[in-house]
Amino acid sequence: MSSQVTIWVDGRPDSNLPLPDRGLNFGDGLFETILLRQCSPLFPDQHFTRLQRGIQALGLPDCLARVQHDFESFLQALRKGEVTPWGVIRIVVSRGGGPRGYAPPVKPRPRVVIEYSPLDYDCGEMGAPARLGIASVRWSTQPALAGIKHCNRLEQVLAAHEALRADLDDMVMLSQDGHVVSVTAGNLFIVRDGSLITPELQGYGIAGTRRQLALSRWMPALGLGVQIANITPEEITAASEVFYTNSIVGVRPVAAIGNMSWHTYPVCTMLFRQYLGDLS
Amino acid sequence: MSSQVTIWVDGRPDSNLPLPDRGLNFGDGLFETILLRQCSPLFPDQHFTRLQRGIQALGLPDCLARVQHDFESFLQALRKGEVTPWGVIRIVVSRGGGPRGYAPPVKPRPRVVIEYSPLDYDCGEMGAPARLGIASVRWSTQPALAGIKHCNRLEQVLAAHEALRADLDDMVMLSQDGHVVSVTAGNLFIVRDGSLITPELQGYGIAGTRRQLALSRWMPALGLGVQIANITPEEITAASEVFYTNSIVGVRPVAAIGNMSWHTYPVCTMLFRQYLGDLS
Repeated sequence: MSSQVTIWVDGRPDSNLPLPDRGLNFGDGLFETILLRQCSPLFPDQHFTRLQRGIQALGLPDCLARVQHDFESFLQALRKGEVTPWGVIRIVVSRGGGPRGYAPPVKPRPRVVIEYSPLDYDCGEMGAPARLGIASVRWSTQPALAGIKHCNRLEQVLAAHEALRADLDDMVMLSQDGHVVSVTAGNLFIVRDGSLITPELQGYGIAGTRRQLALSRWMPALGLGVQIANITPEEITAASEVFYTNSIVGVRPVAAIGNMSWHTYPVCTMLFRQYLGDLS
Repeated sequence: MSSQVTIWVDGRPDSNLPLPDRGLNFGDGLFETILLRQCSPLFPDQHFTRLQRGIQALGLPDCLARVQHDFESFLQALRKGEVTPWGVIRIVVSRGGGPRGYAPPVKPRPRVVIEYSPLDYDCGEMGAPARLGIASVRWSTQPALAGIKHCNRLEQVLAAHEALRADLDDMVMLSQDGHVVSVTAGNLFIVRDGSLITPELQGYGIAGTRRQLALSRWMPALGLGVQIANITPEEITAASEVFYTNSIVGVRPVAAIGNMSWHTYPVCTMLFRQYLGDLS
């Protein structure tokens, strides 16, 4: 797998992270997962806007321009090789080295790691309806970190591990008080009585770039209203349609969550077309 | 600072972590901080017992024997150099490499990183009474990860950053519902009406090795009873004494939390003597 991955550290091809590093030690960093079509990044502004929010939330020194510079250099190098139809870049910004202990160094020097993986499927096709379960591990409540894409992701790792063992595509993750928040790698939407609902993310979750685009562009373009509100598992039973968004699939329908199932995906299909239109 | 640190990766001197690594990407790993006196580890059994609990909680392959083997080899190498009176070893066990995404690889190969730092102060002396504040960031509630020493530590990083900016020794961290949980790097105890209380850690916090030793050995040896219960900030006001435990300081008195202050530390002093006795 790693033979297919091209890695840069701090602007140069390198597959080794200098130690000590607070990203390894504490998950003290941020990441973005950016889809590439023909080596062109999709919706980079949305990714870098969220990254900048994370930089501020974690109190990292302002390093966005350096990240963007490294990203552009990486893309230029990538384009000199074999250009695959679809690929994905993962950018990790760690707070870097420092002395022992939780307290950040007075003058941290963030490290920028960029990893590229080609994708062997066509992201221009809507994904097959996903079979999901409900994860036993739940999102913790942490308003100080909600919304941003930081590197403390053990909850999602544990939930994704559950999905793997259950041979499911992904897991729905609930909040500690039992509300539906997301899948491990995507934001959920339900259609109920003709209107759209997606969970609010003040206390937990990640504010996805495609969730944001769906709310601000694709749904308005289709004349679809959307409510941001708590959703219970029982409310999902009453939904006529369920789908999720993320930066790789765009919009993907849900076929089943446990013993609940859905067989038509008209709203999701319309949104996927809208998404495709935004790519061109 | 890093020039003073000796680092091994997977049993060999190396200060580079091969990428990709899930420890960097997701904080998908565990750590232990082990105090050394004259290059001898203190209470290693307690550390490795907790590490083993973490390995099980995260679903890592059983790698404890390998960690212990690497640790012993590291200690042997360390003893060939200049033996300092006190030092500290940080062991990080990451889930290692793997394909893109949260789901762990089917057969992960954990990586073992060992970092040594000499300490330039005498851990055989009780630390100066600590000046603390109350962190604005709180512990999130996550029963699936409570107690173990995993690498998702952004909450403590943010709180330690607050302490640094406020020129305090550390911060008291509350739970989401306002109970007192810990300092960023240690377990709290209060003395009230002659009896000891320490917070329960079912939903958050780290089950410290010195907390465990205090509860099971040092307090019983002194005939001190201890209650494990929720503590509110208001109850701290009524405490006659406050102290905390961790693997570096052992037991350390608290001089102040915000505008609350204490001037005598009889219970803490007795416990520190008990701790010292256990070291010899």
